[in-house]
Amino acid sequence: MTQDMTEITAAPAFQAATAELRSTHDAFVDEIVELTQIPAPPFAEEVRAKAYEAKFRALGLEEVGNDAIGNVTGLRRGRGNGRTIVVAAHLDTVFPAGTDVTVRREGTVLRAPGVGDDTRGLAALLAFVRALGAGGVETEADILFVGDVGEEGKGDLRGVRHLLTEGPWAGKVEAFFTIDGLEPSEIVTTAVGSLRYRIGFAGPGGHSFAAFGTANPAYALGQLLTGMAALDVPKTPRTTYSASVMGGGTSINAIPEEAWVEIDLRSEEAGALQALDAQVRALAEAAARDETARAETGEIALTMQRSGARPAGTTPDDARIVQATRAALTAFGFTPSARAASTDANIPMSLGIPALCLGSGGTGGRAHSLDEWIDVEEETSLRGLNAALAAIVATAGLWARD
Amino acid sequence: MTQDMTEITAAPAFQAATAELRSTHDAFVDEIVELTQIPAPPFAEEVRAKAYEAKFRALGLEEVGNDAIGNVTGLRRGRGNGRTIVVAAHLDTVFPAGTDVTVRREGTVLRAPGVGDDTRGLAALLAFVRALGAGGVETEADILFVGDVGEEGKGDLRGVRHLLTEGPWAGKVEAFFTIDGLEPSEIVTTAVGSLRYRIGFAGPGGHSFAAFGTANPAYALGQLLTGMAALDVPKTPRTTYSASVMGGGTSINAIPEEAWVEIDLRSEEAGALQALDAQVRALAEAAARDETARAETGEIALTMQRSGARPAGTTPDDARIVQATRAALTAFGFTPSARAASTDANIPMSLGIPALCLGSGGTGGRAHSLDEWIDVEEETSLRGLNAALAAIVATAGLWARD
Repeated sequence: MTQDMTEITAAPAFQAATAELRSTHDAFVDEIVELTQIPAPPFAEEVRAKAYEAKFRALGLEEVGNDAIGNVTGLRRGRGNGRTIVVAAHLDTVFPAGTDVTVRREGTVLRAPGVGDDTRGLAALLAFVRALGAGGVETEADILFVGDVGEEGKGDLRGVRHLLTEGPWAGKVEAFFTIDGLEPSEIVTTAVGSLRYRIGFAGPGGHSFAAFGTANPAYALGQLLTGMAALDVPKTPRTTYSASVMGGGTSINAIPEEAWVEIDLRSEEAGALQALDAQVRALAEAAARDETARAETGEIALTMQRSGARPAGTTPDDARIVQATRAALTAFGFTPSARAASTDANIPMSLGIPALCLGSGGTGGRAHSLDEWIDVEEETSLRGLNAALAAIVATAGLWARD
Repeated sequence: MTQDMTEITAAPAFQAATAELRSTHDAFVDEIVELTQIPAPPFAEEVRAKAYEAKFRALGLEEVGNDAIGNVTGLRRGRGNGRTIVVAAHLDTVFPAGTDVTVRREGTVLRAPGVGDDTRGLAALLAFVRALGAGGVETEADILFVGDVGEEGKGDLRGVRHLLTEGPWAGKVEAFFTIDGLEPSEIVTTAVGSLRYRIGFAGPGGHSFAAFGTANPAYALGQLLTGMAALDVPKTPRTTYSASVMGGGTSINAIPEEAWVEIDLRSEEAGALQALDAQVRALAEAAARDETARAETGEIALTMQRSGARPAGTTPDDARIVQATRAALTAFGFTPSARAASTDANIPMSLGIPALCLGSGGTGGRAHSLDEWIDVEEETSLRGLNAALAAIVATAGLWARD
């Protein structure tokens, strides 16, 4: 039961909220700079989390806290039925401790590692809370604002995974926004699932000449890679695999004691990912077995260490959150489209919670590089913030006094 | 025309020489310690070479010098026809600069990196020169004593290669001893040839999900390794191959831009080594071609960098040097046998110069490790020195006054 978008955009409270976004845009930009300059390396988001928690408290959110995994949460109560929707942005960056995160401003351009991914998202949440308060916007559902940990790389979505499966909010969330990225028109409604492994083959090693005939882990690795190259994966749902980092051996005149490869398996669909996983596992087992059989002496031992698992999932196009977001984007002049990616929304989607990932506006580039930049030119920036706020309000439901 | 071994061992001059070996054995041991404690890392043999050159001069050798590649040479003239035989030991060790090369003495045991391989050999050459001088032994052929560089690993036999193909002695050497190792009974008359490569496959790389279908160097590497595992190589002449050190890739979510492997090919016979080389090269070329064909986009480029080439070869059992050495070993109570290895003798053998590698006696172990040790217990040590000296004199020919 989605409200007509014009009911929201025409409502005086919502108009007052967007006026607040405009009048405080400079403060929003300052907050991007401030938060960007607090380092938040993978698995070390605490300092930024503390600062973010203080801001949640200052904004008057309720039940503000730092959960067991490190997420910062704060509730804005609705007037309705106790339903809860989540609006999240991630605290962590991909940059290691010691990275220079000083923001350089050139006109409306801000340059710094992490400035767009996802510090603009964090600041956007604060701007939304401020705007909703200033406009006196009342929603039906409660809105839980979240600064979450562990979105990037080896973080493996642990923040949102904990939030939705173990923390106090588990089982209570009805819809989930992650505000991540810039361009709002391309919403992510399909979660690309992934499985990552370090596959190692170990053998006894030995002198290359004297011990010739001993099982060589490199040949087991070769057989696995050759098998992978020949795998047939579906184009729809898009399913991919890659051998990426590899290594082994210590000396050119020695049969290596180990050969290993890191692999990355992905799919837009959980079943296809599972099928690919089983195929690769079978290839690895056969490779170890066959090299052991081929050798005159020595055995190859296989180890598969999982280094990442992000579930696949999809939010149906007729879900309220998707309908509301499409309508909000259209209302603010965007042409919405849907795409697949791996974001914090993977977790809710895999749990059947309608979810999507939405950009907060502005432009930029070079995310995950030291040259990362965003442009906060006001009109473009505000158009994105307004659309995102409308999408959130429409998903939560604008409380109607009558 | 080999002299009867008893003509040599019974000659008063030779007996005086072996008496000198015995009476100066303590000095010989001290010289092992002294030389061991002068570091001679790969490609940095200069300091030890300088010290060795000074010893050659002090012993009265003629034409003492340090050639263009770093070998130390010194001539002991014969009385005969101007024929020249070489007696060499290698200056270099496998140990990098900074390795603690302090010798620890425990009774007759000496412990230090490089003490046996090949510092005992270097000291043996000095003992031989001293003994020949003290005994007044006159040989038919000139004997060129050589402390050579680059025997180990990446040194790739460059010292002896230069000596016999480019230096002033090129084309003038009739037989070649390398005094390397301890146990004298197992002489090396077959040179195991080797070819070493770094084989690299390069492609454009890309994001593991977004760029799926791009040529992946890891799969080309896999095909090469799988092909190598299936190669059929002869048992006689013993021919072997090994994939050893490998690597590639930088990030688990990226298709690697490179995958590489170092390989070691060996054979006792030059033709078999050449055939194996051609097979591996064909496999590598096919692997690059097939992955390029399999991929939707991107090309795999192959590079094969040769990092080592040691020629194969054999000294026939009826060569004077082999006959003389077998007779000398037998005369001193050893039971001679022949084996295959990769030593400085590879170079002369590949050039058709009769050559062999002979141990200088004593016992020991753990060569190429920091725990390397030798035992210089006098009787065992002298028996080896005596036999080696007899082999050298018999190969050079004991000059008969009559």
